Amino acid sequence: MKDSIIQEVRATTPLIHNLTNEVVMNFSANGLLAFGGAPVMAKAKEEVEEMAAAADGVLINIGTTSLTELEAMKLAGKAANKKGIPVVLDPVGVGATSFRQDGVRQLLQAVSFTAIKGNAGEMAQLVDIPWETKGVESVGDGNVEEIAAKVAKLYQTTAIITGKTDVICSNEKMIHNTTGHAWLEKITGAGCLLGSILTACLTTNYSIEEQALTAVQFYGLAAEHAAAQSYVYGPGSFLPAFIDALSLKSEQLERS
Amino acid sequence: MKDSIIQEVRATTPLIHNLTNEVVMNFSANGLLAFGGAPVMAKAKEEVEEMAAAADGVLINIGTTSLTELEAMKLAGKAANKKGIPVVLDPVGVGATSFRQDGVRQLLQAVSFTAIKGNAGEMAQLVDIPWETKGVESVGDGNVEEIAAKVAKLYQTTAIITGKTDVICSNEKMIHNTTGHAWLEKITGAGCLLGSILTACLTTNYSIEEQALTAVQFYGLAAEHAAAQSYVYGPGSFLPAFIDALSLKSEQLERS
Amino acid sequence: MKDSIIQEVRATTPLIHNLTNEVVMNFSANGLLAFGGAPVMAKAKEEVEEMAAAADGVLINIGTTSLTELEAMKLAGKAANKKGIPVVLDPVGVGATSFRQDGVRQLLQAVSFTAIKGNAGEMAQLVDIPWETKGVESVGDGNVEEIAAKVAKLYQTTAIITGKTDVICSNEKMIHNTTGHAWLEKITGAGCLLGSILTACLTTNYSIEEQALTAVQFYGLAAEHAAAQSYVYGPGSFLPAFIDALSLKSEQLERS
Repeated sequence: MKDSIIQEVRATTPLIHNLTNEVVMNFSANGLLAFGGAPVMAKAKEEVEEMAAAADGVLINIGTTSLTELEAMKLAGKAANKKGIPVVLDPVGVGATSFRQDGVRQLLQAVSFTAIKGNAGEMAQLVDIPWETKGVESVGDGNVEEIAAKVAKLYQTTAIITGKTDVICSNEKMIHNTTGHAWLEKITGAGCLLGSILTACLTTNYSIEEQALTAVQFYGLAAEHAAAQSYVYGPGSFLPAFIDALSLKSEQLERS
Repeated sequence: MKDSIIQEVRATTPLIHNLTNEVVMNFSANGLLAFGGAPVMAKAKEEVEEMAAAADGVLINIGTTSLTELEAMKLAGKAANKKGIPVVLDPVGVGATSFRQDGVRQLLQAVSFTAIKGNAGEMAQLVDIPWETKGVESVGDGNVEEIAAKVAKLYQTTAIITGKTDVICSNEKMIHNTTGHAWLEKITGAGCLLGSILTACLTTNYSIEEQALTAVQFYGLAAEHAAAQSYVYGPGSFLPAFIDALSLKSEQLERS
Repeated sequence: MKDSIIQEVRATTPLIHNLTNEVVMNFSANGLLAFGGAPVMAKAKEEVEEMAAAADGVLINIGTTSLTELEAMKLAGKAANKKGIPVVLDPVGVGATSFRQDGVRQLLQAVSFTAIKGNAGEMAQLVDIPWETKGVESVGDGNVEEIAAKVAKLYQTTAIITGKTDVICSNEKMIHNTTGHAWLEKITGAGCLLGSILTACLTTNYSIEEQALTAVQFYGLAAEHAAAQSYVYGPGSFLPAFIDALSLKSEQLERS
């Protein structure tokens, strides 16, 4: 983890245009604000190009998308590509319905993504590897590195697969991260907020491997820190403590 | 209350497809996760049938619905009927506008609901009994049992009327519950989240009377437990404590 | 600050129809409930006139608006004007895109607003004064009183500009407020919830200058009170404490 990436985010407060799902909008905005970014949400197709062009990074998350929103996501993604700013895809529950599969296929054709982030089930779907899922959750078991390598190669991107061990494949390098806490699976939107924070880290002047690793490692340390607080009793009280932890300095989160 | 119902939910983590309002999506997802279910939200009409067919139960809540979403709700409800999984209706604020009355009428014609849950004002509206409401709140006074019996009979369903005393009418039996706490009325979405938790309980192998009573009784006990914590000072701090309480075992919530 | 305004809100629990953005719906509903109002959210164009006509006040916030929602906002605003109840505009991020500028222009033509509330960048945009913004945040510097005076005059309204010092211009009077806390800028929706609480205060029987000042002053004192609690460690734990504080009596919030 490079602390200088976290510091750069906080010094520049990058504007992140979030085209994300309705379940997590509030949590993502508060989490990104705590971390040091500046969130903006806008999804009307009439304004997304202008908003994306004014932003420092764009996040596209299909969790509750519709045909109308998919159009807006394509426009925002293309505008990000044109401006040369990072654009991240979070293909939430892509395996759950053919509508999501079609939508993600269209997004992948229209937009060149700087990074694609998902759980193993979602990422396996993108490269036609069988994997067991349940709704938007990944419950299968298999070779995660193989999936990450295939996603990275096929879509010419950085692939980030979250799980007990996070696996990042970027420029043919395979990177692992083991920070994190089980309570991240007991709250909604943990993966979604990570997408926003990852996008913020991608706006800094470091290699994408360092940026991606720093995002997932810091995020996991913040979860561990929050879970360890004496006033955290369950997933409900974990939520505000986790937002608090995202605002801390790297050294305050280090494992002792 | 049958603790074995709670245990079965936690052992099977039923996938609940929530077609619910935008105000409560995050709270409902976190509450259902804490309780032991697996929430999924999807509302595009192109995917709701497939999502409902993959789920173990479907919740339909009209709190912020639109014509487009009503179409999706009908499709999801029919898919649930076809698969034979429970489907619950929460007719939020149905008396407030003729648009909501028409929408609920259409839903009731298209879908056979396993249970209908609402406050007295909403349920009275479904059987043309006069009742005073204010926005989406019920402020009237009258014979709640009569309303429950009429809803159950007219719609061939289990009727659950929430209030200071919850009244359940199922298979001509009238059941009462008095667990709960006044702070549930000072937070938004308390009734909406109960709808999701009720749907999860309806996926278990017990009689519907036991399932419905267990859902409302456990929910009320969790509220009492949360309100009694020393670090709960008002409706704001009640929220995370309540989510925490929903994750506890039945015996941890029993009144002493 | 007139405590009797707060007391009147709590005695009458005015029904506030919120046409607001998806990011803050839950936070706004919980905050308004804690304060003493009764929130209702409805945005389908088929029902907004009826809902607004049943309400005591209407809030219009364009944070994540679309063409469809803009239509509904105009209908709700006109219904409020027809009934003679207060209607408040929060032109979130109006300067960010031409779509928002057009939308707000349409709203200002169709509806006579009782009050317009925004940060300096948003309010400057309404009267064509140059101001630096970043997404939906105001980062510029300049003569805020001049902006408030111009907005009030041009739109025949009460102008409320939030910031380190809040500036209210109403009936040619200029009023200032300095309550508040820096953490309001580290959470999403602080300005949006203030819009809902302001609308509730505008339903009381006092002068609009007293109503507007009371709303912003009480709100800022609640933030100061929350931030001072020993169990508030960051923006995450500030959130529930702030909701708690909004439910307190004025005298519990007074600066010592």
